[in-house]
Parts: sequence; structure tokens; C-alpha cells
Amino acid sequence: MAERAGSAPAKGPRLIAVGSGKGGVGKSTLSANLAVALARKGRKVGLVDADIYGPSQPRLLKAEDLKPQAKDKQMIPVTTPYGVKLLSMGMLVEPDKAIAWRGPMAAGALTQLIEGDWGDIDDLVIDLPPGTGDVQLTMIQKFKPAGALIVSTPQDLALMDATRAVRFFEKAEVPVIGVVENMAGYVCPHCGEASDPFGSGGAEAEAKRLGYPFLGRIPLAIDIRTASDAGTPPAAGEGPIADAFAQLADALVEREALA
Amino acid sequence: MAERAGSAPAKGPRLIAVGSGKGGVGKSTLSANLAVALARKGRKVGLVDADIYGPSQPRLLKAEDLKPQAKDKQMIPVTTPYGVKLLSMGMLVEPDKAIAWRGPMAAGALTQLIEGDWGDIDDLVIDLPPGTGDVQLTMIQKFKPAGALIVSTPQDLALMDATRAVRFFEKAEVPVIGVVENMAGYVCPHCGEASDPFGSGGAEAEAKRLGYPFLGRIPLAIDIRTASDAGTPPAAGEGPIADAFAQLADALVEREALA
Repeated sequence: MAERAGSAPAKGPRLIAVGSGKGGVGKSTLSANLAVALARKGRKVGLVDADIYGPSQPRLLKAEDLKPQAKDKQMIPVTTPYGVKLLSMGMLVEPDKAIAWRGPMAAGALTQLIEGDWGDIDDLVIDLPPGTGDVQLTMIQKFKPAGALIVSTPQDLALMDATRAVRFFEKAEVPVIGVVENMAGYVCPHCGEASDPFGSGGAEAEAKRLGYPFLGRIPLAIDIRTASDAGTPPAAGEGPIADAFAQLADALVEREALA
Repeated sequence: MAERAGSAPAKGPRLIAVGSGKGGVGKSTLSANLAVALARKGRKVGLVDADIYGPSQPRLLKAEDLKPQAKDKQMIPVTTPYGVKLLSMGMLVEPDKAIAWRGPMAAGALTQLIEGDWGDIDDLVIDLPPGTGDVQLTMIQKFKPAGALIVSTPQDLALMDATRAVRFFEKAEVPVIGVVENMAGYVCPHCGEASDPFGSGGAEAEAKRLGYPFLGRIPLAIDIRTASDAGTPPAAGEGPIADAFAQLADALVEREALA
């Protein structure tokens, strides 16, 4: 991170990478809500939306109308309504346009976001794109994260990719903090009964097999989807879903040793 | 495509790219079932699994135990139990291992798969990874597809990325065949009532806004997920889901002009 003029060298925030291997498992939604939950616990939190080809954090955190400023080519994060500072790939490109970038451009953009003027924050959550390619490689080579959080649905096809993501972080010697199961359990709005469109328990079993903590289960819920599309993260509200994210934040705060 | 020795130059199959922008919207499941549905209509079909960091076609098409042979460095596709020929990134790497490849390696692998010894096929379906990066750029620059099929869930966050994918193909002058809405409508196994965890109708509205055909709606169904995880594509069976994929195949067969 850049040092601030006139101050002692910043210790810098701890970097928490959120990865999944597979796309569409709710990594961005989880990153946004985790960041909000950490902020509610009094942490000073920044969020880097590194999902170059599908940046969704400006929408998730109601920051689509906020434009980051730059100072000496260094980007200054915007402050979202939820107290989380944000820089997103979505701020470097227009909506509705193709983002046809090869790896070096994507990796360069990641560098620009992480090296933004984050000021005095405790945690920098990095919402990674799917896969284990240029963005992930540049991240681990240039900015060693304090830990990685793995998100998966309970479905076999997602778990296969989540396992590859775990192996990727192991190889890079980035500590795997644990695995979160997303989209498990859907409550029918008509009868109130739960069922599992994507299965259930698979991520917990896989975490066990790989020897990492299982950090909890976030349900598939219409509320989460509508709140996400509307830019009102459930973690900023009250209720069981907010509680689930708060617990996840607790797990991260407890692991202060990661810092 | 490579010419076969002793024969006239092959006209080559028509390439159908299946893209989404966002991951996890069911692109691979749709590609597999579309390929099977085309084969059931008498087409000779190949499938390239270009999802480098999350190859799932060997699982989806029950081909995990099949190993492709090579002849003079050219890969020979395996024939899956459903009559579809297949080459997958998953065949180039071991399961459970990280695939830490930068763009040029990923693009090189794509080339190797598309330039496999496909023989005399009519259609080559290309299951693209999420995003619009190296793999997509190499595909359009080296192998001009006859058309692109866009898959999206009805959720705003997915539609934003699907729109970027459409813009990408437009810029590359690849005809957009149409948009398919996936994961719309979930029938509760307890009460039989339908609800929409990911919303409904969004992809149809977006297709209309962009001026492209809306090619149909595939429900979110436990049956599809369990069948996918088990390597028994619903398109190979009977019932309403098989019919939905058959109709999609019809739409592609009718558009023979794409060839």
C-alpha cells in the first residue's frame, strides 16, 4: 500500500481474499455483506471489487452514482452508504459495454485498485473473479493476502471448482480461513417448507475432507436477491440473514492473528 | 479445423458459442443439454468445454473415465454415452488440482481443443468460461463462431453481465442467436407451487431491449441439478425439461443459415 505523506509507514490493512473457483455462487454478495458486517463491528473496512468482467459491487453497495477521484494517479475509494470504502472494476468501465481485456490489463487494473489511497483501514476484502488466472496470480504474487475465504454452493459441480481454489491458495501459501456454504436451503414463500435446489451440506463435507473450518451456511432467499439487486445489503439490516453474516464477521475478527 | 488426409478439405462444423458474462448461471448445463438435444435430432455434434478454471462437461456428460487419445499432437475427442463428442479442459488437468494459468496458456489450450480431430460433425458447441477475456478473445480472433447463444438468470446482477457479453459478440461481429433464461421458476417439492428465487422474466425483457430473440426459459429444478451431478443430462430423457431443450435445439437447427 502507498505510504501517506508525513506519517510513519502504514502497517496496511489485512487483506482477505474471497474466492470460489466457480462463478455465480454468491461470492460478490457474500463479500459485500461480510464487509458491511465487519464495519458494523467497528472495523474500518475497504472492499476491492476485482471481478473484472462482471463487477457487481457498485450495485450491491448502492454506489453506482459515486465516482472515485484520483490524486497523482492514485485512486481514492468512494465511501458507500454502509460505511464500507469501495473501489471497483465497474468504476473503470462504462456499464453496458464489453470489457474485452486480456490478462495483463486485468492484472494491471487489480493493482490499481489495491494500491488505491485506502487511508487507515483494518480490513481490505477482495472480491475475486471466478477462476484461478491472471487476477488471482497477480494478487498472490504482488499482494500476499492474510487469508482466503472460500464460497461454494453445495452442488458437486461447484465443490469441484471450490476445491481447485483451495488448492490454488495452498500452493501460494495463503492461509485458507474456511469455507462458507451459500444457497443452501430455500424456503417456499407459499408453504414455508424448506428444500434444497442446489443440495445441502456438500460444502461442509468438503471443508471437513480438506481439513478447513466450515464457517456457516447462507440460505438461498428471495430477500437476499431482491436486497442485492436494490443495493440494500441484508447484513445492514436485522434478522436471521443479518445474523448469519454477523457470525461470519465474528469468525474473521476472532482470527485477528491473520493480521 | 484440420483437414483429413485423403479427403477433400472439410467444410468444417458450424461453431456455436455459448456465453453468459457471469458464471454460475447454468451455461455448462445448458451447453451439455443443447448438444444432447441436437444429437437427438440427428445432428452430428461436438462439444468443447472451454471453461478452463472450472471444466464441468466430463461430469455432466459422464465422461470422467474417458481419456482422449492424441495423433501427431492433435487430440481425438471422446464419444460420450449420449453420442456427443467431447474435448474438455478437464482432460488436460487432474481433478482436485489448482489450474493456475495466465491468459496465453488458457488461450493455447482453447486452440488445442477446437483444433482437435472432430471428424465429420455438423455442430461444434463451445461452452465458454465466464467473462470476456483471453479465451473469448482468442476464440473470436482465431475461430469465428457462426453464432453466439447468451444464457442468463433473470436477476439484475446476471443481466448486467449478459448485456456485456452481448456487446462483446456484437463488437466481434459474431451474430447473437438469442437469449435463454435459466433458473426461472422453482417448483416447491412440498406444495407444488412455483416461486422465483432469481426473479422471472428479466432475461426476456433484456433480450427485447437489445433486439434479439428470446429462445426460452429453463426452470430451476432439483431434477436438473441431481441429473447434472450424476452425469445424466435431462435432455437425453423425456418430460417437460427434455422438451424445453429440444425446442432450443429446434431453434438452432432452423437457423441453418448460420452454417
